[in-house]
Amino acid sequence: MLPLFAIFTIQRTIMIRLGILGGGQLGRMLLQQAANYPVETWVMENDENCPAASLCDHFVKGDIRDFDAVLAFGQHVESLTIEIENVNLKALEKLEAEGKRIYPNTRALGIIQNKILQKQFYREHEIPTAAFKVLQGKDELMAEGGFLPAVQKLAVGGYDGRGVLMMRTEEDLGKGFDEPSVLEKMIRVHKELAIIVAIGPNREQGLFPPVEMVFDPMLNLLDYQICPANIPEKIMWKAEAISLSVARNLKSPGVFAVELLTDDVGNVYVNETAPRVHNSGHHSIEGNYSSQFDMLLRIILGYPLGNTDNILPSMLLNLIGEHGYEGEPVYEGLEDVLKIENAFVHIYGKRETRPGRKMGHVTVISSDKRDLQHKANKIKHTLKVKGIIKK
Amino acid sequence: MLPLFAIFTIQRTIMIRLGILGGGQLGRMLLQQAANYPVETWVMENDENCPAASLCDHFVKGDIRDFDAVLAFGQHVESLTIEIENVNLKALEKLEAEGKRIYPNTRALGIIQNKILQKQFYREHEIPTAAFKVLQGKDELMAEGGFLPAVQKLAVGGYDGRGVLMMRTEEDLGKGFDEPSVLEKMIRVHKELAIIVAIGPNREQGLFPPVEMVFDPMLNLLDYQICPANIPEKIMWKAEAISLSVARNLKSPGVFAVELLTDDVGNVYVNETAPRVHNSGHHSIEGNYSSQFDMLLRIILGYPLGNTDNILPSMLLNLIGEHGYEGEPVYEGLEDVLKIENAFVHIYGKRETRPGRKMGHVTVISSDKRDLQHKANKIKHTLKVKGIIKK
Repeated sequence: MLPLFAIFTIQRTIMIRLGILGGGQLGRMLLQQAANYPVETWVMENDENCPAASLCDHFVKGDIRDFDAVLAFGQHVESLTIEIENVNLKALEKLEAEGKRIYPNTRALGIIQNKILQKQFYREHEIPTAAFKVLQGKDELMAEGGFLPAVQKLAVGGYDGRGVLMMRTEEDLGKGFDEPSVLEKMIRVHKELAIIVAIGPNREQGLFPPVEMVFDPMLNLLDYQICPANIPEKIMWKAEAISLSVARNLKSPGVFAVELLTDDVGNVYVNETAPRVHNSGHHSIEGNYSSQFDMLLRIILGYPLGNTDNILPSMLLNLIGEHGYEGEPVYEGLEDVLKIENAFVHIYGKRETRPGRKMGHVTVISSDKRDLQHKANKIKHTLKVKGIIKK
Repeated sequence: MLPLFAIFTIQRTIMIRLGILGGGQLGRMLLQQAANYPVETWVMENDENCPAASLCDHFVKGDIRDFDAVLAFGQHVESLTIEIENVNLKALEKLEAEGKRIYPNTRALGIIQNKILQKQFYREHEIPTAAFKVLQGKDELMAEGGFLPAVQKLAVGGYDGRGVLMMRTEEDLGKGFDEPSVLEKMIRVHKELAIIVAIGPNREQGLFPPVEMVFDPMLNLLDYQICPANIPEKIMWKAEAISLSVARNLKSPGVFAVELLTDDVGNVYVNETAPRVHNSGHHSIEGNYSSQFDMLLRIILGYPLGNTDNILPSMLLNLIGEHGYEGEPVYEGLEDVLKIENAFVHIYGKRETRPGRKMGHVTVISSDKRDLQHKANKIKHTLKVKGIIKK
């Protein structure tokens, strides 16, 4: 039997070649930090104009979901990481067997990639998560009227809101997916939290302070995230214990974003886990001594973990492409936002905007939480990503 | 007459193309920050393996001292900046006349590039600096026995310690340069300070807290720099006033590093000025809310200036190639240094080490200055840049 968790002794005097599967903003921010360390960076992505393409040492155009492409890409490097889960697992398994180091390892990635395996993993390790049923198809779904209200999530292929359906009434069941999926009992959500956990190559662990997602009650859109979360100590302890349990039981080095839900009677549940750097950790670039990107690089390069403490409380807003615009982006109000003390702008360098597309983010840090709120609201109403084509 | 200081109204909705002359570590760190903003980056340097080559959108191999090369490079961009003074001024003057924006402008760069003009500039603006004589050749030098002890500095071509000779006795005069130069009266130096000044496109100004250079009394090598400097308020005020006066009188937008000397009776003198980001400002990446690199980009892109306040006091050590080694670098002790809380490592990605070559730096931040000193000493004795070839 292969050890699930190898003890690594990385030869640190030679330059490690690191491959990143995916060339989006997460890759871009990882590369900005990678330039501080002795590492040779490789990126694979289908689009040579992607945000990460111009910041790596070597760019390879290719499909990260394609077995042959990933396998060939892996030959260039000693270590590989991902910036999106939707990558070819079989190729990574072969590369891992050949001795490449994969962050996260393929066992953890395989669990996360499949929502059925992910939910069973939580249950197996007694990690609190919404009650669920495993469904193979629509017939099984139709029999679950008594389980409503619930959420149906496709086992594979769901991403960023796709592959998820709300099932409130028996009527909704008829519109459900006819594919392997999980049906999760709906939780009366009080708060949405996220905790970034770092697991080092020798099982060292680092927890970033919890983040709270604040939603617009009118539009049901993520408005901004606050760090640290406004939660009682008891909830924080539960959230931290659960997040650590998820990350440790995945038995893989890497950075993990554990998304959590609380209800109004003090329960904390895992919603889902991303085995990688994550939007909920972007504030750590300016808000924490060591960022999530720094942390992932330290893990990959075999260095000690960094300091996860907050420098100051922070708020983060995503910059989303406005509805009604597309084409080359125009960042309206950028100058006014940069007048705000300790507002840090990150534009991802995407060539085209589309309605709802993540085009950048702004982090504000301040010792005063009311000041943060005030500034975040101002930014929200000032900075708009429009496009040169108006529809 | 051309206005010396044009009021810029930059059209901010289009992507600005920025050219950087020089591809060293300053360019590399500028590019790491540039990835946060909507800017297309171009770099020109003779070496395609230079630290900045892999982090820009477009790399052009070429000699930054060559008129034709700089002129051709300038056609790709709207704005240009430098990361080393030793660039072709005539080409930049032509580009400026064609409407390109140059940071610093060519008038300021021309003054700085020539030590005679630089010293005359200080005198003209009543900025305290060591007394000096302008010399056209050796004959004039030989007549200055009464002016010793002094320092002879070549008017042009001196860089990083080259082109500078100590003249302590009449005998030393015979070994002097037979070229246009300045002969500066030696100051009994108590402290060496540096202040980074930002001048915005509409003359807005920002001052970073003063940095103090601490030298090893045995080896006369820069040991580390501390920010803020340990100086009385009165000295700080003088240093700030002088630095501002230098930067404002240069009548150019940009970032300026003003190097200062104090004596033991409370005088403060300008030693020299760099019209660009500078080694003495590297700590600002982690130590200040807005770094010198962020500041330069804000100026070039027409944004408001950032916040120059220190987050925490900092110390910075340069990582210098050890004597006796060359070839591919080996960073001995890197892992131990990364164990130190809030130590931030920057490796510049140079392919080869050489004795005395700047290969990286480490910044430590802490609220406790004794803790800083302790950590800086530990880092100094732990981290060594060796090479795979031992001589």
